[in-house]
Amino acid sequence: MSTIKDVAKLAGVSIATVSRVLNNSDKVSLDTAQIVQDAINSLEYAPNAMAQSLVTQKSNTIGVLVNDLSDPFFGQMIKTIDTVAKQNGQHILVGNGYHNPDFEKKIINLFISKQCDSLILHSKALKDSEIISIANKIENVVIINRYIKELADKCVYTDNSWGTNIATDKLAKLGHTNIAFINSNHQIEDAKSREIGYKKAITKHNLISKVIYTNPDQNGGESAMKQIIKSTTKYTGIVCYNDSIASGVIAFLHENNIKVPNEISVIGFDDLDVAQYVYPKLTTIHYPIKEMAQYATLLLLNKLDKKQSFGLKLIVRNSISKVNLGIN
Amino acid sequence: MSTIKDVAKLAGVSIATVSRVLNNSDKVSLDTAQIVQDAINSLEYAPNAMAQSLVTQKSNTIGVLVNDLSDPFFGQMIKTIDTVAKQNGQHILVGNGYHNPDFEKKIINLFISKQCDSLILHSKALKDSEIISIANKIENVVIINRYIKELADKCVYTDNSWGTNIATDKLAKLGHTNIAFINSNHQIEDAKSREIGYKKAITKHNLISKVIYTNPDQNGGESAMKQIIKSTTKYTGIVCYNDSIASGVIAFLHENNIKVPNEISVIGFDDLDVAQYVYPKLTTIHYPIKEMAQYATLLLLNKLDKKQSFGLKLIVRNSISKVNLGIN
Repeated sequence: MSTIKDVAKLAGVSIATVSRVLNNSDKVSLDTAQIVQDAINSLEYAPNAMAQSLVTQKSNTIGVLVNDLSDPFFGQMIKTIDTVAKQNGQHILVGNGYHNPDFEKKIINLFISKQCDSLILHSKALKDSEIISIANKIENVVIINRYIKELADKCVYTDNSWGTNIATDKLAKLGHTNIAFINSNHQIEDAKSREIGYKKAITKHNLISKVIYTNPDQNGGESAMKQIIKSTTKYTGIVCYNDSIASGVIAFLHENNIKVPNEISVIGFDDLDVAQYVYPKLTTIHYPIKEMAQYATLLLLNKLDKKQSFGLKLIVRNSISKVNLGIN
Repeated sequence: MSTIKDVAKLAGVSIATVSRVLNNSDKVSLDTAQIVQDAINSLEYAPNAMAQSLVTQKSNTIGVLVNDLSDPFFGQMIKTIDTVAKQNGQHILVGNGYHNPDFEKKIINLFISKQCDSLILHSKALKDSEIISIANKIENVVIINRYIKELADKCVYTDNSWGTNIATDKLAKLGHTNIAFINSNHQIEDAKSREIGYKKAITKHNLISKVIYTNPDQNGGESAMKQIIKSTTKYTGIVCYNDSIASGVIAFLHENNIKVPNEISVIGFDDLDVAQYVYPKLTTIHYPIKEMAQYATLLLLNKLDKKQSFGLKLIVRNSISKVNLGIN
């Protein structure tokens, strides 16, 4: 069987260089890395490299499972994880699970087969028991945006219901009595929690309510608002599952010459960049995804000395106002 | 040395199941995959698995290098690649290069060390010669959004200069004589090409011009527009490097009660979702990133029978109008 010395000899480089290539150091030029890789392949030296990686358990690679990278929420999350990982000499690999249990499973299997030695999971489709089983087997796992009692120490989460609760409460205090909630039609915990928070405020203030389910994107927001406008009951306050839906609501209202916030007040959720793109700027719930992603990465790397919790808060911009009783 | 039979025996599963785990099939439950992986580890069977992967050259994994996943342009690109890859039984792993040669190199090395058997590269920082060297070594490589003569068959690209050329031309035809261009301050080919296209139209129509460089995001657009407004020469037309900058320009103009398009016309570039979030909806250059990403993935998988080229086109929405001579 070939040794690292044989590879170095064939490639015409030092043993240290071969080792750097095996450890994926960026101190090696791509050309050299390729020459070394060719030598590894032709000598079938790879087995030792992989055995070594199995022994040292250090691939310095974090696998990150998200729902959908085309959603800016996950873009922000990934950017933060990547930044913190880089600062700590780690790489990340990213995969999409699309809230689908088979896809989530496939990606996690892929990370394991690619020797990712730690995982950050934004899993919404796998059962608690499946996540627990993964966490029992792989030491370094952090679950983001989900709470599982048995894994409390590995979970980084916030109370979603609080966000819609304070959003609805705010509109009630501005005099709105008829407040609709446009929820996501994805069957995930976040949608359920956000509806619970909305309903609590509805009950507290004894308001007239309506819940519509739609795709959690701009088009979903447009079509949901179209439905709400057609209803015989008039709603002057709209709480949205996320900022993308809210941006669709506002676009629809512009198209139909309905003034925001004079006629209808709109509140989003997440506080992504889009909240400041729309006109008027969107009042929304700030979701501390950057802080949570940073904390999750440091937790994964054992760089934290104390536990932290994360809360949601209302950011008031220009898309809400006191109810205009004249138009009701 | 252990065999696949030993692994199957220790794990208490069939050889076919071990093989499925090695090939990362989603037909295996996560629990079973872990039991098999444990058996592989304790028997140090991994060497053969990796040797096998080196021989068959089939990891069914595409490594995708992008600039920055938090930019929705790349989110859309990845989503399309992922969809086409899944339809063809492939997985993708994604990494950020941040237009930095060291980071781009590191990610490509990581993909190679993780046995990705094909690569889609959105590389802007590596030299042509470095990309050529990678493509000479790894058979399955496709370069997206870049043209390298020596690798013409592996490049999927479009002419960026054409976009800013038709954007500026359109404003000139609407009577605008003073047109500024807000360019990206990243030293990449796209920024150079887009400036060339703008300048061609400026020369053709003999216009008054100004180029400002800024971060290619909303904040960059806001601060660039602030500079342009301060200038003694008044500009009624603004061509932007991308939609994010344009959204910042529009936000700044709203804040300062300057009407779009009555006082100032604004054109973006890319035609991302944000173009329809802003108010008024943004006139922009449609960049066929979805079509290009689909084509790139099929090209990589040898599923194409003819070559296709990609062009940019102007999408007229509500952010431009005839110049209002009264305010000039």
